[in-house]
Amino acid sequence: MAAPVKKTVELFYDVVSPYSWIAFEVLTRYQNKWNIDLKLKPFFLGGIMQGSGNKPPAMVPNKGAYMLHDIERLKQYYNVPMNQPSDFAEVAFKKGSINAQRFLTAVSMSNPDMVEPVTRELWMRVWNKDEDIYLPESFIQAGVKAGLSMENAKAAVAKIKDSEVKDKVKERTQEALDKGAFGSPIIIAHVDGKEHLIFGSDRFPILAMILGEKWEGPLVEFSKCKL
Amino acid sequence: MAAPVKKTVELFYDVVSPYSWIAFEVLTRYQNKWNIDLKLKPFFLGGIMQGSGNKPPAMVPNKGAYMLHDIERLKQYYNVPMNQPSDFAEVAFKKGSINAQRFLTAVSMSNPDMVEPVTRELWMRVWNKDEDIYLPESFIQAGVKAGLSMENAKAAVAKIKDSEVKDKVKERTQEALDKGAFGSPIIIAHVDGKEHLIFGSDRFPILAMILGEKWEGPLVEFSKCKL
Repeated sequence: MAAPVKKTVELFYDVVSPYSWIAFEVLTRYQNKWNIDLKLKPFFLGGIMQGSGNKPPAMVPNKGAYMLHDIERLKQYYNVPMNQPSDFAEVAFKKGSINAQRFLTAVSMSNPDMVEPVTRELWMRVWNKDEDIYLPESFIQAGVKAGLSMENAKAAVAKIKDSEVKDKVKERTQEALDKGAFGSPIIIAHVDGKEHLIFGSDRFPILAMILGEKWEGPLVEFSKCKL
Repeated sequence: MAAPVKKTVELFYDVVSPYSWIAFEVLTRYQNKWNIDLKLKPFFLGGIMQGSGNKPPAMVPNKGAYMLHDIERLKQYYNVPMNQPSDFAEVAFKKGSINAQRFLTAVSMSNPDMVEPVTRELWMRVWNKDEDIYLPESFIQAGVKAGLSMENAKAAVAKIKDSEVKDKVKERTQEALDKGAFGSPIIIAHVDGKEHLIFGSDRFPILAMILGEKWEGPLVEFSKCKL
């Protein structure tokens, strides 16, 4: 009997988003448990917000305050070591994540197998250790720490300004917008020729239902992060 | 050995909100499974949105479109028979839910044990059968169907304009705002003298973690609704 065909699950994400980190960790834990082919697709959340007309949640004060508590609790539940950056407005709005997302896209083009560990290193920098994810040397450090050679890390950083990479990020962001995105993460499950879009990191049991798989909770035993 | 003291869980909700219906059904299913004292607290979502500066999600077109799919899937998963009203803008913004919430509040003052079934009937009207929840006769029908005597149903409807009832809804809405609400539902778990606020119907495993209880999924076998 032939092995059943793997169902494709795409994860569109931006490392500025802590809820995206949860989805990233949960889906990478489940990629060997469920019969899925997980495609990691870095996109640009700023472009999603602008294109969809959505506003950052923390613009509503009660929502911003809530998110701090929410993230603390999700951190425990999912074993994803999120710590609020000391100046999130600077990270998210002044510097922004476009460089980081272009760097990840360059890695996805040159070293596709390394996107997962390099992405995780960027999240560890910004959402765990309160470190920069804007400067070239930050990307080189993250890349090397994740297992890229120094040469490949430098080559990926050098491509941040290449139109090929810039266009790829734009195209992927537009693709997500066209499919209905209004934030990050966006999960798209492909089942029997149909696409099922899921927003956020709150619908894993629903994703399991769509895929015909079993949701077994956050699988902290497979965590590659430490709290 | 004395029975352990029940932990209080408050549910602030408005029947205009389908996500609140999910929280209502799930928590009423769990109220006999977990060691909790569930307090149903009808409030006014319009006042929460205005007071917190939040905007209805469907004002972002991609978000509005997403919610239709999301609700369809949650309906299956939670066995809560939600059907989109034919003219939700009229229900939510033109007529509004203030009458419904005042009616429920009047019931909570005169017949506290009946709040659960009467609330369910209002949700069945608006979010299942596309029926009115604005006119006095609608409340009388819902109340009687839920098990109130005709006399008590009429008495509760008569109190919709009483300042005692109006003030109670205002006070409860303000209470929720002061505690950090920016939408509906708001769940507040009281554990060891601390209050834990949860927004939405996506955090039941987190609620279980806070309460020291076990989340066992949507418990559709205890559903009082039919799909």
